[in-house]
Amino acid sequence: MKALLVISHGSRRDESNMEVQRLTDTVRPLVSERFGIVEAAFLELASPLIPDGISLCVSQGAKEILILPYFLAAGRHVAEDIPEIVAASQKRHPDVSMTIAPHLGGSELMAEFLAGSACLPQE
Amino acid sequence: MKALLVISHGSRRDESNMEVQRLTDTVRPLVSERFGIVEAAFLELASPLIPDGISLCVSQGAKEILILPYFLAAGRHVAEDIPEIVAASQKRHPDVSMTIAPHLGGSELMAEFLAGSACLPQE
Repeated sequence: MKALLVISHGSRRDESNMEVQRLTDTVRPLVSERFGIVEAAFLELASPLIPDGISLCVSQGAKEILILPYFLAAGRHVAEDIPEIVAASQKRHPDVSMTIAPHLGGSELMAEFLAGSACLPQE
Repeated sequence: MKALLVISHGSRRDESNMEVQRLTDTVRPLVSERFGIVEAAFLELASPLIPDGISLCVSQGAKEILILPYFLAAGRHVAEDIPEIVAASQKRHPDVSMTIAPHLGGSELMAEFLAGSACLPQE
Protein backbone atom coordinates (compact mmCIF):
# COMPACT_ATOMS: atom_id res chain seq x y z
CA MET A 1 0.00 0.00 0.00
CA LYS A 2 1.32 3.42 -0.98
CA ALA A 3 0.71 6.58 1.00
CA LEU A 4 1.00 10.23 0.07
CA LEU A 5 1.83 12.51 2.99
CA VAL A 6 1.38 16.22 2.29
CA ILE A 7 3.63 18.24 4.60
CA SER A 8 2.93 21.89 5.24
CA HIS A 9 4.42 24.33 7.70
CA GLY A 10 1.57 24.59 10.18
CA SER A 11 0.13 27.79 11.60
CA ARG A 12 -1.14 29.14 14.89
CA ARG A 13 -4.19 30.05 12.86
CA ASP A 14 -6.51 27.02 12.81
CA GLU A 15 -8.18 28.08 9.59
CA SER A 16 -4.83 27.85 7.83
CA ASN A 17 -4.29 24.27 8.99
CA MET A 18 -7.84 23.32 8.07
CA GLU A 19 -7.20 24.72 4.61
CA VAL A 20 -4.39 22.20 4.16
CA GLN A 21 -6.53 19.39 5.52
CA ARG A 22 -9.30 20.31 3.07
CA LEU A 23 -6.80 20.38 0.23
CA THR A 24 -5.62 16.90 1.21
CA ASP A 25 -9.22 15.69 1.24
CA THR A 26 -9.68 17.09 -2.25
CA VAL A 27 -6.46 15.51 -3.49
CA ARG A 28 -7.32 12.04 -2.09
CA PRO A 29 -9.82 10.96 -4.77
CA LEU A 30 -7.69 12.53 -7.50
CA VAL A 31 -4.76 10.21 -6.75
CA SER A 32 -6.64 7.16 -5.47
CA GLU A 33 -5.30 4.93 -8.22
CA ARG A 34 -1.75 5.58 -7.08
CA PHE A 35 -2.17 6.15 -3.35
CA GLY A 36 -4.42 4.14 -1.07
CA ILE A 37 -3.66 6.52 1.79
CA VAL A 38 -3.47 10.31 1.60
CA GLU A 39 -2.80 12.30 4.75
CA ALA A 40 -1.59 15.73 5.80
CA ALA A 41 1.01 16.52 8.44
CA PHE A 42 2.70 19.64 9.73
CA LEU A 43 6.27 20.68 10.40
CA GLU A 44 5.27 22.60 13.50
CA LEU A 45 2.44 24.39 15.30
CA ALA A 46 -0.30 21.94 14.26
CA SER A 47 -1.24 18.27 14.48
CA PRO A 48 -0.36 15.76 13.34
CA LEU A 49 3.33 16.56 13.29
CA ILE A 50 5.38 14.79 10.62
CA PRO A 51 6.40 11.75 12.74
CA ASP A 52 2.77 11.27 13.76
CA GLY A 53 1.61 11.66 10.16
CA ILE A 54 4.09 9.00 9.11
CA SER A 55 2.90 6.70 11.92
CA LEU A 56 -0.68 7.34 10.82
CA CYS A 57 0.18 6.12 7.33
CA VAL A 58 2.06 3.09 8.67
CA SER A 59 -0.82 2.16 10.97
CA GLN A 60 -3.09 2.09 7.91
CA GLY A 61 -0.77 -0.35 6.20
CA ALA A 62 1.55 1.88 4.20
CA LYS A 63 4.65 0.11 2.90
CA GLU A 64 5.76 3.07 0.79
CA ILE A 65 5.27 6.72 1.74
CA LEU A 66 5.77 9.59 -0.66
CA ILE A 67 6.31 12.76 1.32
CA LEU A 68 5.36 15.90 -0.57
CA PRO A 69 6.66 19.17 0.92
CA TYR A 70 3.77 21.54 0.32
CA PHE A 71 6.11 24.52 0.27
CA LEU A 72 6.74 27.10 -2.41
CA ALA A 73 10.42 27.73 -1.89
CA ALA A 74 13.21 25.47 -0.73
CA GLY A 75 14.15 27.31 2.43
CA ARG A 76 15.65 25.62 5.45
CA HIS A 77 12.42 23.80 6.25
CA VAL A 78 12.52 22.00 2.92
CA ALA A 79 16.28 21.68 2.62
CA GLU A 80 17.08 20.62 6.17
CA ASP A 81 14.22 20.23 8.63
CA ILE A 82 11.93 17.90 6.71
CA PRO A 83 14.75 15.55 5.58
CA GLU A 84 16.05 15.34 9.17
CA ILE A 85 12.62 14.56 10.61
CA VAL A 86 11.89 11.97 7.93
CA ALA A 87 15.29 10.34 8.48
CA ALA A 88 14.51 9.97 12.17
CA SER A 89 11.11 8.42 11.38
CA GLN A 90 12.74 6.13 8.87
CA LYS A 91 14.80 4.63 11.69
CA ARG A 92 11.64 3.89 13.63
CA HIS A 93 10.02 2.26 10.60
CA PRO A 94 12.90 0.51 8.84
CA ASP A 95 10.58 -1.72 6.79
CA VAL A 96 8.71 1.21 5.22
CA SER A 97 10.09 2.93 2.14
CA MET A 98 10.04 6.73 2.48
CA THR A 99 10.74 9.12 -0.37
CA ILE A 100 10.68 12.92 -0.28
CA ALA A 101 9.28 14.43 -3.47
CA PRO A 102 10.46 17.81 -4.80
CA HIS A 103 8.72 20.67 -3.02
CA LEU A 104 5.60 21.99 -4.74
CA GLY A 105 7.19 25.29 -5.77
CA GLY A 106 9.90 23.39 -7.61
CA SER A 107 7.40 22.31 -10.25
CA GLU A 108 8.36 23.49 -13.71
CA LEU A 109 4.73 24.39 -14.26
CA MET A 110 4.43 26.72 -11.27
CA ALA A 111 5.02 29.92 -13.25
CA GLU A 112 2.33 28.91 -15.70
CA PHE A 113 -0.02 28.05 -12.84
CA LEU A 114 0.63 31.39 -11.16
CA ALA A 115 0.12 33.30 -14.37
CA GLY A 116 -3.04 31.39 -15.18
CA SER A 117 -6.54 32.53 -14.56
CA ALA A 118 -6.75 30.32 -11.49
CA CYS A 119 -4.57 32.67 -9.50
CA LEU A 120 -4.63 36.11 -11.05
CA PRO A 121 -8.00 37.83 -11.20
CA GLN A 122 -9.04 38.49 -14.78
CA GLU A 123 -9.91 41.93 -16.09
CA MET B 1 0.76 51.01 -16.02
CA LYS B 2 -0.14 47.91 -14.02
CA ALA B 3 2.30 46.04 -11.82
CA LEU B 4 2.22 42.54 -10.40
CA LEU B 5 4.12 42.17 -7.14
CA VAL B 6 4.73 38.58 -6.05
CA ILE B 7 5.17 38.43 -2.28
CA SER B 8 6.85 35.48 -0.65
CA HIS B 9 7.99 34.88 2.89
CA GLY B 10 11.74 35.23 2.44
CA SER B 11 14.38 32.89 3.78
CA ARG B 12 17.79 33.03 5.38
CA ARG B 13 18.74 30.65 2.60
CA ASP B 14 19.71 32.72 -0.45
CA GLU B 15 18.90 29.94 -2.86
CA SER B 16 15.30 30.00 -1.67
CA ASN B 17 14.98 33.73 -2.36
CA MET B 18 16.64 33.34 -5.76
CA GLU B 19 14.10 30.63 -6.55
CA VAL B 20 11.30 33.15 -6.09
CA GLN B 21 13.14 35.75 -8.15
CA ARG B 22 13.61 33.21 -10.95
CA LEU B 23 9.92 32.32 -10.78
CA THR B 24 9.05 36.00 -11.10
CA ASP B 25 11.33 36.28 -14.12
CA THR B 26 9.55 33.32 -15.69
CA VAL B 27 6.13 34.76 -14.93
CA ARG B 28 6.96 38.20 -16.41
CA PRO B 29 6.66 37.31 -20.11
CA LEU B 30 3.62 35.12 -19.42
CA VAL B 31 1.60 38.07 -18.10
CA SER B 32 3.15 40.88 -20.14
CA GLU B 33 -0.14 41.76 -21.82
CA ARG B 34 -1.70 42.51 -18.46
CA PHE B 35 1.25 43.72 -16.41
CA GLY B 36 3.99 46.04 -17.65
CA ILE B 37 5.89 45.55 -14.41
CA VAL B 38 6.41 42.27 -12.57
CA GLU B 39 8.53 42.21 -9.42
CA ALA B 40 9.11 40.04 -6.36
CA ALA B 41 9.26 41.18 -2.76
CA PHE B 42 9.61 39.50 0.61
CA LEU B 43 7.79 39.68 3.90
CA GLU B 44 11.01 39.31 5.85
CA LEU B 45 14.60 38.03 5.78
CA ALA B 46 15.29 39.05 2.16
CA SER B 47 15.33 42.09 -0.11
CA PRO B 48 13.40 43.87 -1.35
CA LEU B 49 10.95 43.96 1.53
CA ILE B 50 7.33 44.62 0.60
CA PRO B 51 7.43 48.43 1.02
CA ASP B 52 10.56 48.56 -1.13
CA GLY B 53 9.00 46.28 -3.71
CA ILE B 54 5.99 48.57 -3.89
CA SER B 55 8.25 51.61 -4.23
CA LEU B 56 10.14 49.80 -6.98
CA CYS B 57 6.90 49.34 -8.90
CA VAL B 58 5.87 52.96 -8.33
CA SER B 59 9.27 54.24 -9.48
CA GLN B 60 8.75 52.36 -12.74
CA GLY B 61 5.45 54.13 -13.26
CA ALA B 62 2.93 51.76 -11.73
CA LYS B 63 -0.50 53.31 -11.18
CA GLU B 64 -2.10 50.00 -10.18
CA ILE B 65 -0.35 47.24 -8.24
CA LEU B 66 -1.75 43.75 -7.85
CA ILE B 67 -0.10 42.10 -4.87
CA LEU B 68 -0.07 38.32 -5.06
CA PRO B 69 0.72 36.52 -1.80
CA TYR B 70 2.84 33.61 -2.98
CA PHE B 71 1.79 31.54 0.02
CA LEU B 72 0.04 28.18 0.19
CA ALA B 73 -2.03 28.68 3.30
CA ALA B 74 -3.67 31.75 4.77
CA GLY B 75 -1.79 31.89 8.04
CA ARG B 76 -1.12 35.07 9.92
CA HIS B 77 1.30 36.32 7.29
CA VAL B 78 -1.42 36.29 4.66
CA ALA B 79 -4.33 37.22 6.90
CA GLU B 80 -2.68 39.98 8.91
CA ASP B 81 0.93 40.89 8.14
CA ILE B 82 0.72 41.48 4.40
CA PRO B 83 -2.51 43.55 4.57
CA GLU B 84 -1.01 45.70 7.33
CA ILE B 85 2.21 46.34 5.43
CA VAL B 86 0.34 47.11 2.21
CA ALA B 87 -2.01 49.48 4.05
CA ALA B 88 0.99 51.40 5.38
CA SER B 89 2.51 51.62 1.89
CA GLN B 90 -0.83 52.72 0.51
CA LYS B 91 -0.66 55.79 2.76
CA ARG B 92 2.73 56.69 1.33
CA HIS B 93 1.45 56.29 -2.24
CA PRO B 94 -2.13 57.56 -2.08
CA ASP B 95 -2.38 57.97 -5.85
CA VAL B 96 -1.53 54.33 -6.60
CA SER B 97 -4.24 51.68 -6.54
CA MET B 98 -3.18 48.59 -4.59
CA THR B 99 -5.12 45.32 -4.52
CA ILE B 100 -4.21 42.14 -2.71
CA ALA B 101 -5.10 39.02 -4.71
CA PRO B 102 -6.12 35.76 -3.02
CA HIS B 103 -3.09 33.78 -1.87
CA LEU B 104 -1.81 31.19 -4.30
CA GLY B 105 -2.93 28.22 -2.21
CA GLY B 106 -6.48 29.52 -2.30
CA SER B 107 -6.77 28.66 -5.96
CA GLU B 108 -9.56 26.20 -6.66
CA LEU B 109 -7.21 24.40 -9.01
CA MET B 110 -4.47 23.78 -6.46
CA ALA B 111 -5.54 20.22 -5.62
CA GLU B 112 -5.56 19.34 -9.30
CA PHE B 113 -2.15 20.96 -9.73
CA LEU B 114 -0.75 19.06 -6.77
CA ALA B 115 -2.19 15.78 -7.99
CA GLY B 116 -0.91 16.35 -11.51
CA SER B 117 2.19 14.91 -12.99
CA ALA B 118 4.03 18.18 -12.53
CA CYS B 119 4.30 17.62 -8.80
CA LEU B 120 3.99 13.94 -8.05
CA PRO B 121 6.61 11.68 -9.59
CA GLN B 122 5.04 9.21 -11.97
CA GLU B 123 5.51 5.45 -11.65
